[in-house]
Amino acid sequence: MTQSFDPESPVFTSHLGGKLRVSSTMPLGDSAALSLAYTPGVAEVSAAIALDESLADTYTWRSRLVAVVSDGTAVLGLGDIGPAAALPVMEGKSALFQQFAGLNSVPIVLATTDTEEIISTVLRIAPSFGGINLEDISAPRCFEIEARLRELLPIPVFHDDQHGTAIVVLAALRNAATITGRGLADLRVVISGAGAAGVACAKILLAAGVGDIAVADSRGIVHAGRSDLNLIKQEVAGMTNRSALAGSLADALVGADVFIGVSAGVVEEAAIARMADEAIIFALANPTPEVHPEVAHRHAAVVATGRSDFPNQINNVLAFPGIFAGAFDAGARKITEGMKLAAADAIGGVVSADLRADYIVPAPFDVRVAPAVRAAVARQAAAEGAGRPAPASAAR
Amino acid sequence: MTQSFDPESPVFTSHLGGKLRVSSTMPLGDSAALSLAYTPGVAEVSAAIALDESLADTYTWRSRLVAVVSDGTAVLGLGDIGPAAALPVMEGKSALFQQFAGLNSVPIVLATTDTEEIISTVLRIAPSFGGINLEDISAPRCFEIEARLRELLPIPVFHDDQHGTAIVVLAALRNAATITGRGLADLRVVISGAGAAGVACAKILLAAGVGDIAVADSRGIVHAGRSDLNLIKQEVAGMTNRSALAGSLADALVGADVFIGVSAGVVEEAAIARMADEAIIFALANPTPEVHPEVAHRHAAVVATGRSDFPNQINNVLAFPGIFAGAFDAGARKITEGMKLAAADAIGGVVSADLRADYIVPAPFDVRVAPAVRAAVARQAAAEGAGRPAPASAAR
Repeated sequence: MTQSFDPESPVFTSHLGGKLRVSSTMPLGDSAALSLAYTPGVAEVSAAIALDESLADTYTWRSRLVAVVSDGTAVLGLGDIGPAAALPVMEGKSALFQQFAGLNSVPIVLATTDTEEIISTVLRIAPSFGGINLEDISAPRCFEIEARLRELLPIPVFHDDQHGTAIVVLAALRNAATITGRGLADLRVVISGAGAAGVACAKILLAAGVGDIAVADSRGIVHAGRSDLNLIKQEVAGMTNRSALAGSLADALVGADVFIGVSAGVVEEAAIARMADEAIIFALANPTPEVHPEVAHRHAAVVATGRSDFPNQINNVLAFPGIFAGAFDAGARKITEGMKLAAADAIGGVVSADLRADYIVPAPFDVRVAPAVRAAVARQAAAEGAGRPAPASAAR
Repeated sequence: MTQSFDPESPVFTSHLGGKLRVSSTMPLGDSAALSLAYTPGVAEVSAAIALDESLADTYTWRSRLVAVVSDGTAVLGLGDIGPAAALPVMEGKSALFQQFAGLNSVPIVLATTDTEEIISTVLRIAPSFGGINLEDISAPRCFEIEARLRELLPIPVFHDDQHGTAIVVLAALRNAATITGRGLADLRVVISGAGAAGVACAKILLAAGVGDIAVADSRGIVHAGRSDLNLIKQEVAGMTNRSALAGSLADALVGADVFIGVSAGVVEEAAIARMADEAIIFALANPTPEVHPEVAHRHAAVVATGRSDFPNQINNVLAFPGIFAGAFDAGARKITEGMKLAAADAIGGVVSADLRADYIVPAPFDVRVAPAVRAAVARQAAAEGAGRPAPASAAR
């Protein structure tokens, strides 16, 4: 087979053998060590957990271990590439959990795309983990999978493509609104894309008090009069589009304050040009934004993208490490809407003293972010009574 | 709840937070590193694997990653204690894979004990792994689960409680026979226990040429005339017991050359006393051997146990790390009978120049063992044509 890639390029040489390593935190170099970590000593630990399962949170790694679960159907801009091809992305995600929040994480890619099979598989492996990060599972299956797992499992379940993106978008939008002298309630927002990220953005922005939102999919504005909507889009139609708009994305953009692109589509400059003064444009498609930042800047006061080579990068890594760490600290069984809003506040708050149009969110490597998110999420979880007593390992 | 254990004891303090850690093998400390390990660089790797799935063996960690899978139904001497209580044992097992063979390993404990559900769950998570080590799953389900997964998966599947024990027993028995001046074909062997280990010991000893074997379960000698045998015991009845013995374990031991205990039962000294001269006794039940080594020594020339505080410890750790490492080196899709026999030869061979009655197997920490097993298994796999070209990562 002819290779379509350069195996000598840094991205391939650096991926040789994968990106993760599992090591022991206990010494195993002699018989005495082995008799503590393994037989016969370990039997005492197992016997204790058999009598009181909650001790597993203290004496195993699971209470601070995240499974990064994907079926490989919606990977980056590549789409449905299957579990094996998704694995490098999931390894990267697991590595980021350790890098940014000191959490252990294991990628689990699945040989099924069936909703019920994914749910039953995650339920069956769940005793191994303290949290489930769903990743790159295509819409609309992702909505039901997350909702059912959240209901059935006593540990945090979080579809990052939905909520990670939505949380960082909210953080950025609040700061962009501040810069342009408006409140969230004043904004009319247009979201392009009714997939995982689009739906979650609409929900969190409504929860945060944004005044009006129109969501457009590839066929135009989502409204109750359309007969081609799946269940989740019917739900979107019911809670958005207060102005009862119909028509195309371009129609929705006329006079809009905010454009949030979370699709792979392209938006013409002419449509952008008809937005309100002091417009805010988040063109988040990767690697090709819906509208190029240079074009966007001709018509907008604040511009953000998903790319690291432009200012204001909307990057999920600002959210997910601290969110899981905070949930684990609090012993939370769920990541609630309140915890997501608290995370967004914390992310935005890190830069609130230095706000500029090209600095509405922290950089991905800002070391202040994960601790701030972690603390805010844990605090909110405790305030909601979502917490159980923190296991002994949480203090370490 | 009153604690039935001492949380200040070393075994509990050393287990705080569990025993494993996942870390990144690639730097992630700045934007340039992130763009290689994660977006946008990782998309090139994923795209390449999407076109040629075999590249996942080179550019992800999975081809040298072992899942340690258990449903927690037959854990050490504790029995059916469930997945959470099994997890400390599985963490220990994963740690041993790294310690002894440099392999990554992740414990997966399951919230089901149903044979079909276990099989389907492992099949669905299999794209994440390069090998499946089944552990502490009770008989007779363990036999069908392993057989079906071996048939359905293109990666090594190995139930360690069966084959790990059997391989080390064969290694030890061959050396014990040499010391007592006999060949394997001369031996009449009695195995107490018809569970995972007992059945596997019978099979590998027959494959290695042992002359006659009788297996006894809790109701006595397994023979074709019994009406209470499950399918696997019927199979055992068909291939063992050439002398057509019936009756109790004690009846079987009259004149026997070898006793192998892999049950939790007790054997009276009177029964041991009636074995042949120069008897060989492997009393492997843990923590309480079927017959105490001091008692056994009154009647036997060679004695082994499963305990670290007596000579001749039969410990699976001599086998499984090198077996998986060798299978991975060869790119083997299965661990065959030939590879198991090769592993036993390699383990026994490490001490063959220094054989003594109290030194028939290497100590668990003998650093010569895992490399010898690894090389022998890889060589045998290649000789059987079981190998595929080694991935680039195997050489690292």
